[in-house]
Amino acid sequence: MHLFYQPNINNGSHFLDPDESRHCVKSLRQKENDKIQVTDGKGKLFTAKITKADIRKCTFEIISEEKKETENHHIHIAIAPTKSLDRIEWFIEKAVEIGINEVSFILCQQSEKRFMKLERIKRKAISAMKQSLKYRLPKINALDDFEKFIKQDFGNTQKFIAYVDHRIPQHLKDTAKSNYQYLVLIGPEGDFSEKEITLAKEKGFTPISLGKNRLRTETAGIAACHILNLINET
Amino acid sequence: MHLFYQPNINNGSHFLDPDESRHCVKSLRQKENDKIQVTDGKGKLFTAKITKADIRKCTFEIISEEKKETENHHIHIAIAPTKSLDRIEWFIEKAVEIGINEVSFILCQQSEKRFMKLERIKRKAISAMKQSLKYRLPKINALDDFEKFIKQDFGNTQKFIAYVDHRIPQHLKDTAKSNYQYLVLIGPEGDFSEKEITLAKEKGFTPISLGKNRLRTETAGIAACHILNLINET
Repeated sequence: MHLFYQPNINNGSHFLDPDESRHCVKSLRQKENDKIQVTDGKGKLFTAKITKADIRKCTFEIISEEKKETENHHIHIAIAPTKSLDRIEWFIEKAVEIGINEVSFILCQQSEKRFMKLERIKRKAISAMKQSLKYRLPKINALDDFEKFIKQDFGNTQKFIAYVDHRIPQHLKDTAKSNYQYLVLIGPEGDFSEKEITLAKEKGFTPISLGKNRLRTETAGIAACHILNLINET
Repeated sequence: MHLFYQPNINNGSHFLDPDESRHCVKSLRQKENDKIQVTDGKGKLFTAKITKADIRKCTFEIISEEKKETENHHIHIAIAPTKSLDRIEWFIEKAVEIGINEVSFILCQQSEKRFMKLERIKRKAISAMKQSLKYRLPKINALDDFEKFIKQDFGNTQKFIAYVDHRIPQHLKDTAKSNYQYLVLIGPEGDFSEKEITLAKEKGFTPISLGKNRLRTETAGIAACHILNLINET
């Protein structure tokens, strides 16, 4: 059965958005009375029956619903957009597959990329969510200034800053607790500035290493995300 | 200082191949007497001085050399090529960044991609090796039939087969020893066939899980590679 996304299904939106309708009716040739699956991206999976196979607004009625179990951890990665957006799109795809709850984009002093549109990123996330049969879409936050971002109150969260420095003795894998909330800052191609590192430390971020190898921004993001998933793997 | 690759430097090839020469002399505008770094991809790093800045054959003389420390482990991933070669190229790039010693390509019953050229893959590996300041290029083996491949004698190696089955209790992270030699088989989009799994088990491959999430072929390859690196991280 094919899986579709409708974030407002709980509020009575029993139809697919234009993109999804087109994909369902045109590409996948689904017809009236065919069964489909629809997720709200918040952990619910619905089995539904198509009532009108319209390529602009495919309507359905719900047959049954199930709720996927919730996780006991929250992985939030705040990453500087890379110069080539491909690499960030790739990061999103892989992070969703591996498991991520929230993504923020941070504008750093040494960021080469100073703006970004979230639309493509969100589409990538939706497509990866469907592909990997996850029923949760990560929260994706717009680009924010580094200083403004780190000053927020993240509550009961282990806050980390990853950067290239061989004097950092602590590896993320040895520092993160299981079943917890995490936020990891990942810097741009030119890394964080000294000032940013100092500010982050003042705000309670712990410097951590992701290993002895020099990783690109998007690889560092995936490595952090994967390590936090491994820690929570039972 | 810019880093270049010349695999035969130890045999007296004190020049760059045409691609590297062009990159050095044309793109990076290096001139006679400029200093460059050259690696043999086998753990040696040379500091050299350009003697002739020829865009087809840039020659140099060696000033000094250093040998990077050897690793106590050997990570070998055998992966089925994905339908879209982009994804395998991406796998190579990220695996080299994270750390890999050997890559094989396996032709499986459910492989959609039945052939592949190694040239682009090797170029990707070289470029990732230089980008991540590694001085070791993984050995890259040509596509081989699954059955033929697994029948080889891999000596004292922990052999694993990763596939999607929720009954597999063992996670790679809990099964792999540190400072060891590993070989992990990663299946195609349609996964391994029952017959392949049985054959692999007969040949001493241990079924392992990479976690509860459904990962694409290339993501599974990276996850396995990353886990084995984490196990060997001191």
